[in-house]
Amino acid sequence: LPGPIIALTTDFGWGSSYVAQLKAVFLGSVPEARLVDVSHSVPAQSVLHGEILLRSIAFIYGPGSVHVVVIDPGVGTQRLPIAVEARGCFFVGPDNGLFGQLKTVPGSRAVVLDKPEIFRHPVSNTFHGRDIFAPVAAELASGLVLDDVGTPIESWATGTLDTPMQRNGLFDVPLLAADHFGNILTHLHARQIPENPRIYLNKNDISLVATYGDATDGSLVALIGSDGYLELAVKNGSAAEALGANWQTCQLSVSSKR
Amino acid sequence: LPGPIIALTTDFGWGSSYVAQLKAVFLGSVPEARLVDVSHSVPAQSVLHGEILLRSIAFIYGPGSVHVVVIDPGVGTQRLPIAVEARGCFFVGPDNGLFGQLKTVPGSRAVVLDKPEIFRHPVSNTFHGRDIFAPVAAELASGLVLDDVGTPIESWATGTLDTPMQRNGLFDVPLLAADHFGNILTHLHARQIPENPRIYLNKNDISLVATYGDATDGSLVALIGSDGYLELAVKNGSAAEALGANWQTCQLSVSSKR
Amino acid sequence: LPGPIIALTTDFGWGSSYVAQLKAVFLGSVPEARLVDVSHSVPAQSVLHGEILLRSIAFIYGPGSVHVVVIDPGVGTQRLPIAVEARGCFFVGPDNGLFGQLKTVPGSRAVVLDKPEIFRHPVSNTFHGRDIFAPVAAELASGLVLDDVGTPIESWATGTLDTPMQRNGLFDVPLLAADHFGNILTHLHARQIPENPRIYLNKNDISLVATYGDATDGSLVALIGSDGYLELAVKNGSAAEALGANWQTCQLSVSSKR
Repeated sequence: LPGPIIALTTDFGWGSSYVAQLKAVFLGSVPEARLVDVSHSVPAQSVLHGEILLRSIAFIYGPGSVHVVVIDPGVGTQRLPIAVEARGCFFVGPDNGLFGQLKTVPGSRAVVLDKPEIFRHPVSNTFHGRDIFAPVAAELASGLVLDDVGTPIESWATGTLDTPMQRNGLFDVPLLAADHFGNILTHLHARQIPENPRIYLNKNDISLVATYGDATDGSLVALIGSDGYLELAVKNGSAAEALGANWQTCQLSVSSKR
Repeated sequence: LPGPIIALTTDFGWGSSYVAQLKAVFLGSVPEARLVDVSHSVPAQSVLHGEILLRSIAFIYGPGSVHVVVIDPGVGTQRLPIAVEARGCFFVGPDNGLFGQLKTVPGSRAVVLDKPEIFRHPVSNTFHGRDIFAPVAAELASGLVLDDVGTPIESWATGTLDTPMQRNGLFDVPLLAADHFGNILTHLHARQIPENPRIYLNKNDISLVATYGDATDGSLVALIGSDGYLELAVKNGSAAEALGANWQTCQLSVSSKR
Repeated sequence: LPGPIIALTTDFGWGSSYVAQLKAVFLGSVPEARLVDVSHSVPAQSVLHGEILLRSIAFIYGPGSVHVVVIDPGVGTQRLPIAVEARGCFFVGPDNGLFGQLKTVPGSRAVVLDKPEIFRHPVSNTFHGRDIFAPVAAELASGLVLDDVGTPIESWATGTLDTPMQRNGLFDVPLLAADHFGNILTHLHARQIPENPRIYLNKNDISLVATYGDATDGSLVALIGSDGYLELAVKNGSAAEALGANWQTCQLSVSSKR
């Protein structure tokens, strides 16, 4: 039987000793686990970046998989350590909005991690990833259920990854992040986009194409990315570079064509 | 029995959700596989960089191993998805030159991936790595043979990693890439280099040394790297820095000493 | 039974073919091994950075684990290849100070790697990681003992990671490295710090806080990091940025408060 999947997402930096220490917890207590380094290059303390990653990958490792997500600017303060279960997958980390998008998943629920007998002691003030989240994630990967590791809570923190809202027939679409290709990601899903949409960037029309190759070299286009969300791209180039350092302030809007 | 080795080489960026999604395919369908992250920091869309990596590592994981290489600027267009077999190793990716160097391997052969029943559906226009290459690589890792996953093709694309040619007793040697140490790689193999060679960089003589430590601090030297190819290095320094931002335009030539 | 843990720490660069080649040795000869990529982004040839990593992680993978540490500016020269055993853990790499801190571990011992029958041949002049250190580490992971892989040596190289010394009641504390958050690490351990200490940075008093969240936004503070050592931090910011490019030259001192 293959071991459980434990997926690690942190802002520790690739090659930091913090990652190595997190893994030591899993290698020691769940030796058969299959560890996946989702990311250790989340921009320092960017909860939004963690939410965008989870949007794509929350459920891809299937029931029983455990995500430990440590983007934790409030470590050692009053923010709660929690674990969430949704569609049979587990998510362990700080209650700071990282898991906000799981609130609308039918049947999702959460517990506050209040069983210190599971923790690694002494619990550091600055590294709950190693001392609280990893030991709890290890127990969930090993077969404990949510109620074994904490006490149910009614709700948990909402994140900042918002579904763009329509006003007067127009979606105002924030530009969220750039990938390694310079493609710029948004949170407007294809199913929200009207047929034959009109897409404006800083009030200029841009085209919606089916794939990168359908664009002309150097032109900025919109397309539906592999996760189903609208993104901006430049064929054989970088949309982030084309728009300049302040690309996050560009205005993207989508309306029905008329 | 240890699981099959699946080696991943992409330009997705370390920590991108695309890598996590690629792995989900393998973890789901070949749970016993041993995944190796060769690189996810290939410069965006640099087929040449992929070729240089494969030059070093194509056969190191032994017969039965599978390389999935996703550097795919033409995703969603007419370039073909292929799988190549050479020396018992498999290579899956786009037919854009990545696998050009395998054409001269005795007995190597290729198929076009035309069996949609193997793919992940719906097939995204922009992420064949996840939807075509990974599922096919998973099947090859699990024991399918080349003809199970596609239809034989006569030939496949030549890459841009060229063997330097000799003209009038002189090799003109392109500078291809820099590693983490600032060593500059070429594609001139030791066996092509004449005895007692004369090596010129921008018309200045440079020495050929046996190892980094044999150079004097700060001097630029040539040596034979661990893969057998000529490279440029600076002891306790960086050849790329020493030559400046335009190091790729420097002229390196090798001739017989006389 | 879970396989042995082999932890890799190098300055090869994430995504370099050198890492892939190192792993090929382990995947081929210890297929059941659990490989941990501690870091491949050690600054080129920074032995000190390797020492700082080992400070945190030397023993976290438990008895029987093997660290292969390849930060090796002197490769191919007279520096010795060694293996060290301490608290049942093994450490393989060049004798250039990397393993200096293990000298004071009770019972620690070392051998020089002088059994070429274990090496991979031909041994490259520039890549002892692949040809000497990895094959030896593989044998140790597979159950060989220290004396099987080399000949005992009396001592080995001291590193540069020094315990800050007290002079006239004042510790002069070098600033060693910055992590992904811009926190600045030192080698002054909590147990050396007097009660109610007075901490000066460039002669200005700074506070010692319990966790990042206890600081006010933007203020530079000292705290005890998760490994027990004094570090500098800025809440929701970067101490390295706050101190500027020359942060390594800042003067940090610690004395008894009075």
